[in-house]
Amino acid sequence: MSTVIKGGTIVAADRSYEADILIEGETIKAIGPDLKGDTVVDASGAYIMPGGIDPHTHLEMPFMGTTAAETWESGTFAGLAGGTTMVVDFVIPGEDGMLAAMDAWESKATRQASGDYSYHMCVTGWSERHFDEMPKVVARGINTFKHFMAYKGALMVNDDEMFASFQRCAALGALPLVHAENGDIVAALQQKYMADGTSGPEAHAYSRPPEVEGEATNRAIMIADAAGVPVYIVHTSCEQSHEAIRRARQKGMRVYGEPLIQHLTLDEGEYFNRDWDYAARRVMSPPFRNKSHQDSLWAGLAAGSLQVVATDHCAFTTEQKRMGLGDFRKIPNGTGGIEDRLSVLWTRGVETGRLTPNEFVAVTSTNIAQILNIYPQKGAILPGSDADLVVWDPKLSKTISASNQKSIIDYNVFEGFKVNGLPRYTLSRGEVVWADGQNSQPQPGRGKFIKRKPFPAA
Amino acid sequence: MSTVIKGGTIVAADRSYEADILIEGETIKAIGPDLKGDTVVDASGAYIMPGGIDPHTHLEMPFMGTTAAETWESGTFAGLAGGTTMVVDFVIPGEDGMLAAMDAWESKATRQASGDYSYHMCVTGWSERHFDEMPKVVARGINTFKHFMAYKGALMVNDDEMFASFQRCAALGALPLVHAENGDIVAALQQKYMADGTSGPEAHAYSRPPEVEGEATNRAIMIADAAGVPVYIVHTSCEQSHEAIRRARQKGMRVYGEPLIQHLTLDEGEYFNRDWDYAARRVMSPPFRNKSHQDSLWAGLAAGSLQVVATDHCAFTTEQKRMGLGDFRKIPNGTGGIEDRLSVLWTRGVETGRLTPNEFVAVTSTNIAQILNIYPQKGAILPGSDADLVVWDPKLSKTISASNQKSIIDYNVFEGFKVNGLPRYTLSRGEVVWADGQNSQPQPGRGKFIKRKPFPAA
Amino acid sequence: MSTVIKGGTIVAADRSYEADILIEGETIKAIGPDLKGDTVVDASGAYIMPGGIDPHTHLEMPFMGTTAAETWESGTFAGLAGGTTMVVDFVIPGEDGMLAAMDAWESKATRQASGDYSYHMCVTGWSERHFDEMPKVVARGINTFKHFMAYKGALMVNDDEMFASFQRCAALGALPLVHAENGDIVAALQQKYMADGTSGPEAHAYSRPPEVEGEATNRAIMIADAAGVPVYIVHTSCEQSHEAIRRARQKGMRVYGEPLIQHLTLDEGEYFNRDWDYAARRVMSPPFRNKSHQDSLWAGLAAGSLQVVATDHCAFTTEQKRMGLGDFRKIPNGTGGIEDRLSVLWTRGVETGRLTPNEFVAVTSTNIAQILNIYPQKGAILPGSDADLVVWDPKLSKTISASNQKSIIDYNVFEGFKVNGLPRYTLSRGEVVWADGQNSQPQPGRGKFIKRKPFPAA
Amino acid sequence: MSTVIKGGTIVAADRSYEADILIEGETIKAIGPDLKGDTVVDASGAYIMPGGIDPHTHLEMPFMGTTAAETWESGTFAGLAGGTTMVVDFVIPGEDGMLAAMDAWESKATRQASGDYSYHMCVTGWSERHFDEMPKVVARGINTFKHFMAYKGALMVNDDEMFASFQRCAALGALPLVHAENGDIVAALQQKYMADGTSGPEAHAYSRPPEVEGEATNRAIMIADAAGVPVYIVHTSCEQSHEAIRRARQKGMRVYGEPLIQHLTLDEGEYFNRDWDYAARRVMSPPFRNKSHQDSLWAGLAAGSLQVVATDHCAFTTEQKRMGLGDFRKIPNGTGGIEDRLSVLWTRGVETGRLTPNEFVAVTSTNIAQILNIYPQKGAILPGSDADLVVWDPKLSKTISASNQKSIIDYNVFEGFKVNGLPRYTLSRGEVVWADGQNSQPQPGRGKFIKRKPFPAA
Ligand SMILES: [Zn+2]
Ligand SMILES: [Zn+2]
Ligand SMILES: [Zn+2]
Ligand SMILES: [Zn+2]
Ligand SMILES: [Zn+2]
Ligand SMILES: [Zn+2]
Ligand SMILES: [Zn+2]
Ligand SMILES: [Zn+2]
Repeated sequence: MSTVIKGGTIVAADRSYEADILIEGETIKAIGPDLKGDTVVDASGAYIMPGGIDPHTHLEMPFMGTTAAETWESGTFAGLAGGTTMVVDFVIPGEDGMLAAMDAWESKATRQASGDYSYHMCVTGWSERHFDEMPKVVARGINTFKHFMAYKGALMVNDDEMFASFQRCAALGALPLVHAENGDIVAALQQKYMADGTSGPEAHAYSRPPEVEGEATNRAIMIADAAGVPVYIVHTSCEQSHEAIRRARQKGMRVYGEPLIQHLTLDEGEYFNRDWDYAARRVMSPPFRNKSHQDSLWAGLAAGSLQVVATDHCAFTTEQKRMGLGDFRKIPNGTGGIEDRLSVLWTRGVETGRLTPNEFVAVTSTNIAQILNIYPQKGAILPGSDADLVVWDPKLSKTISASNQKSIIDYNVFEGFKVNGLPRYTLSRGEVVWADGQNSQPQPGRGKFIKRKPFPAA
Repeated sequence: MSTVIKGGTIVAADRSYEADILIEGETIKAIGPDLKGDTVVDASGAYIMPGGIDPHTHLEMPFMGTTAAETWESGTFAGLAGGTTMVVDFVIPGEDGMLAAMDAWESKATRQASGDYSYHMCVTGWSERHFDEMPKVVARGINTFKHFMAYKGALMVNDDEMFASFQRCAALGALPLVHAENGDIVAALQQKYMADGTSGPEAHAYSRPPEVEGEATNRAIMIADAAGVPVYIVHTSCEQSHEAIRRARQKGMRVYGEPLIQHLTLDEGEYFNRDWDYAARRVMSPPFRNKSHQDSLWAGLAAGSLQVVATDHCAFTTEQKRMGLGDFRKIPNGTGGIEDRLSVLWTRGVETGRLTPNEFVAVTSTNIAQILNIYPQKGAILPGSDADLVVWDPKLSKTISASNQKSIIDYNVFEGFKVNGLPRYTLSRGEVVWADGQNSQPQPGRGKFIKRKPFPAA
Repeated sequence: MSTVIKGGTIVAADRSYEADILIEGETIKAIGPDLKGDTVVDASGAYIMPGGIDPHTHLEMPFMGTTAAETWESGTFAGLAGGTTMVVDFVIPGEDGMLAAMDAWESKATRQASGDYSYHMCVTGWSERHFDEMPKVVARGINTFKHFMAYKGALMVNDDEMFASFQRCAALGALPLVHAENGDIVAALQQKYMADGTSGPEAHAYSRPPEVEGEATNRAIMIADAAGVPVYIVHTSCEQSHEAIRRARQKGMRVYGEPLIQHLTLDEGEYFNRDWDYAARRVMSPPFRNKSHQDSLWAGLAAGSLQVVATDHCAFTTEQKRMGLGDFRKIPNGTGGIEDRLSVLWTRGVETGRLTPNEFVAVTSTNIAQILNIYPQKGAILPGSDADLVVWDPKLSKTISASNQKSIIDYNVFEGFKVNGLPRYTLSRGEVVWADGQNSQPQPGRGKFIKRKPFPAA
Repeated sequence: MSTVIKGGTIVAADRSYEADILIEGETIKAIGPDLKGDTVVDASGAYIMPGGIDPHTHLEMPFMGTTAAETWESGTFAGLAGGTTMVVDFVIPGEDGMLAAMDAWESKATRQASGDYSYHMCVTGWSERHFDEMPKVVARGINTFKHFMAYKGALMVNDDEMFASFQRCAALGALPLVHAENGDIVAALQQKYMADGTSGPEAHAYSRPPEVEGEATNRAIMIADAAGVPVYIVHTSCEQSHEAIRRARQKGMRVYGEPLIQHLTLDEGEYFNRDWDYAARRVMSPPFRNKSHQDSLWAGLAAGSLQVVATDHCAFTTEQKRMGLGDFRKIPNGTGGIEDRLSVLWTRGVETGRLTPNEFVAVTSTNIAQILNIYPQKGAILPGSDADLVVWDPKLSKTISASNQKSIIDYNVFEGFKVNGLPRYTLSRGEVVWADGQNSQPQPGRGKFIKRKPFPAA
């Protein structure tokens, strides 16, 4: 049983070319002219790209006293509808440690996911137990460990904990990830704004200024450098953080930066909307920034100082957001984006000339697969690669709206965005799982956990 | 008649993996396990990489009253011996214009070259004739135009000539290249040092300080930006120039920088050697810089702010160099490197951990092919690509010496460098043209001119 | 015959303190408590500051086929009305050379000026005659030489001319000044916009983008560094230029930058006004920039990377501006500001907390006097200093309007600005020449040429 | 009883000029030509400068289990011998709080000091008591509070403590000072080097790399910015820290940097001396850096991005240093410099052309007095200023040696430095307390505590 994608232009990170793709089973068998297969997927007039990988999601995440409403079922299907064939979620250990938490995550993901997935493991403290569990986590196929420099009193780790964990990563061939905001200062500023009576969503932005993110990014990089390990800064939202990354890279350090599609296209003006609900739905950390930061992020993607575009998809309903009425600190932090990342990036990035189509593929898929060490199983259109593919039709367009989205959240932060460029078909391991206009449905349990090997240890 | 390369690890810009390569005729037919062919090339214990491309050579170049002694025959064969399977040389128009000059270059290259080659066309003035000839040059397969901001009274163009030519490049889908040094200031400083009685090779370095290169780089970038065209800075030798490139890239401009293997590894101390011959042999423009600049260049290659490594191979004999005895301005400018670029870069770059093997391939071959628009015919190990390949043996080593080189020059600026990593075999379009220890010989006339198409015009 | 200024707070560049000032004749005799004199000037509730020095004016300048309409009489009186007690104008040599031009300038200035003045000498070409005249100019009391990198075909000098002149400055202990825009590129862009049919004032801004200024600034600095002389960049209007200055200063080079009060407070939006006259009146070079550049300039003044605030007062009537109807290239370049520099800077700089009152004095007077080598005769409140003083009343306010200005121009680019802080009294060499609300009149011929000595030669 | 200093050239921060100085009692009475007084101090052929102020000393400091051996008596006298007329020391609160500690310091200082002095108060934790004591400290004449980001387990404060204290400073009109090194990472690296068996003084440098200082500087600046208060970074030793300071200043923040004379002239090679004693005597935090950092610091002083030069004089005997034999972590941190700061800075800074004599005065005295808010009582040569003066003879020279120093320490880190420029006379409040070649003696108890007022509160 084979499938051939015919008539399209393959867009890879390194080049664009016309060729058909023959899929046998779950993988790409051949690439070339005039291929034949049992089933034909029409790509005429379209681009064929590696399926998007979202390296940063929080599906059904328990956080701030509630649980993100986007489920593994709805979230992964929303991804497929938007051309994203794999997500990497974050496991947060509780009292029972990393391995138990991974089991808990797996119990939700494996039965619901329509697309493939992996995890990052969070390090939320430090002890001998952490030291001992990390290699076991690596053995189970996770080679990335996330550290929060914010969320004081909850997930936050301090500098020596981070240094200890980074050293452990270096020894294990794992890559540390960092949520970079100075949690002490955020907490103090939050308190100050509440004390001043500024309790609305705008205070969320005020209490997390770009300087607070830039500082933490700079600190994380120094600690990684001291530990002799590369580092990946999640949700790089501002010039301050980007500047720290550039400065490090220009000394030869291996540092990666991940802008979100939200920060690339939405600005802090959103928090000043008179409608509390409107503003609260946009509350995430770091918050949206002013437009000068957007220019910095776009240029970084073109220059290569920033490498990937993610979503930090962590979606709460309006109802959940209202937990923070009267106290912005209690608004669950997170927004969605998994369904719209590719089309928004294409529209605002490729159609404007900021990024080439090849760079689009690099930042949404190939670079991510390489950095997370699953390339070329994922992120590539090569014989032997998983047939996670998007037939991208640059002529399809729509206006983004919560009213017709696959996500089960009751709003969309990109509401009203007109996008050009959408998946005509999305294939997950060889199977068409999304076809434009054909009422595709989720296939819970179809998605597989993708093991990621460690890097050669330092 | 097929060839299979067996038992090696393919190192591409994007990944490393074990596979055999099947070659039929001049191109790669298949890549995979257990391939079979008529002839077997043993790659066990070795890496297989795309053949090196040297984007910057001057073989038999008429310059400063003499002609570079390295011939197309010796130069291209030296390249093959070192793993470089293609060179891009510079055509310098004379009174009869660009097309006649191209014919003249071709008459030398086609009968002598052992490896493939292409040209950049130099723009050494501006007139309606230049305007008219440029599209014809493009039609003949050249999509890059070089501009000299130095060599006042000879090759130098001024700002409005450069702007006019850059605009023409934009319209034609061609890429402008720039030799960036402020020719006015160089000329004035040369005169000053001669007037002061400082006439030895060290004055060559004094009269071309890094600031003079940084300034011109910055200016070229501004002019390219105004013309709406990317720009490629040849022989980026210093932090000042690199800084200008970085600054531009961080605004989203498309700027490329090309360090030379010489500037990465040799410093200005060379010019203070008491032996006039020793110092004069190292005279090139820009001159070697102090070690802090080397750090900057290496970090740039790792960070991606610099993209390629070249040689500017323009080799004169000691006898020729002596034209400048008593007047450093008359020392023919140029050094060699084509034979040793890969082994020196591997030794000083990969073995030290500064670059990964994949980055090594990127900067010596893949990036170059992409920027010059001959990818994936060249610079790739993909089915359909020309079988320009190097079986790179990291265990082979030697001490570089003029006494046993293929270059016909009587010295070598890397004399005494111990290198680890050398070609076990070099293949040019499917044929083994260099085999370590087997007395391979040049094959004049074997090399072909490779046409390079224009980019989509702006 | 003595005067005492009583009851005020002296604001100097280094400190603020309460004291009276006793003036005898033209100079400050004593500073201290409870001084007595024949006449009392009331400074209660006010600051006493050194009179403003405007280092950059063009009164009655012949330029672009007409002559700036602001006369020495009206311009210097407007200065006094605004608290500026000295201006430094630019002498432009014609066919008869520098000394004759200086005579011509002097013939206009000496009989009209109400306040003191000096000149910069322009170097608009290079020859043995320039070499020979420069020391004579220095001997006549001018230690600064101005160079235009723009105005191609008119005032512009090229790089080797500039280098020659800078070397001469170094030998004479003179300071080179530079108008930094790349004249070649400006000319080419002007032609391009005209060819495209964009002929209005907005094309003036389009054809002189910040990059063009940044490039020239960077080049001027490199040339000065090669010549071993400090350099002063006039009308630094943008981050690009400021960045080049900072970068140089951080290598230990002595580089000065001069923002104008216009660039600090007006933005490029002015050129898009639908009223051609409105926009054309704002045409000057460099043009106004967007607001991000203003932030850069303000921060530079606070940080010390920019040192002085000037006006480039070169004022043409609306009638004159209309020479450029249909061809923006013919709009006489220049705006006014001499009357409002201090009050606008105080309002937008000191009242907002960007600058301290002491920094205000430094950038409007003291730093200028030091850089131009007339300190502490000017720019200081010290015994022996010329009694050029302003009694600055922070409670006086007005709305700037052409309808009630001293300048004889028929408009004002700051029209409608509400300013707080104005001179209650202005004293020129001990005499009250402006008193708020008292119908002060110009005193043509009162102003004196102030000789400026060379610096110790390099 | 009056004194007149005759025949010299006054060198102030703003200018140099020839004048006599008349002193009556402890203050300057008049400045001008041909002054007369009861006693004449001969300044012919010499410069007269404001006495040096050392803003950073630790006399008799209890630290690391011992007490700095330089006493208030010997230290302040060594200062006078070198031209420094005032020191600012650090009070470290113990269990009894800030006020008791200030009493303890005062009990040592008041009876021993030959020259004037002030204190900075250290904030080594945070509590309501700290909050309450700070205004009392301010009321007693201290307007600067010091924070240690290093010395984990001892003096170190964390980010929220620092933020709380900085906010308190803002409210009180006090200036926070910061010792900027990341104490967590230093502690971890120390442990690592000890574990690796690297226990000598070189490990002190290894465990405190420039990145660790740069990080903390960057963090301190962010925290100050969030608190709305300027910040002063003590002992800025490296480009990383300087870069953070520059970056902040270029955003308009008020940040000060203090290089030490040691970091300007001594490099990390000192720690590799085979003589353990030699190396251990140089152990201080931050450690000496490589020469590229020195270039950065010198350029910063010229550019104004760094403002003052101090010593961090905290001198232990060789005997004390030996506490760290076998464990570098126990070597008492600190070196001397109070006696030699001016002569070394003059020799290495002014004689080389890096700094002007006026800049020398600014960075050793005037800027310090302004930043610490004791200007113009100190740091100025103005009528009414304290007559703390140095008659600086640029022709006096010596070779620095422990064998003939006034400091009571048994070595000198500048041993063997040839210096040109030394005090001919030093005057403290009008009295000659040091005369070259005349066997001047300490005058314990002569020095006075100088109150420093708060700045206007934010
Ligand atoms: Zn996060
Ligand atoms: Zn997240
Ligand atoms: Zn060249
Ligand atoms: Zn070349
Ligand atoms: Zn101008
Ligand atoms: Zn002007
Ligand atoms: Zn310290
Ligand atoms: Zn200290």
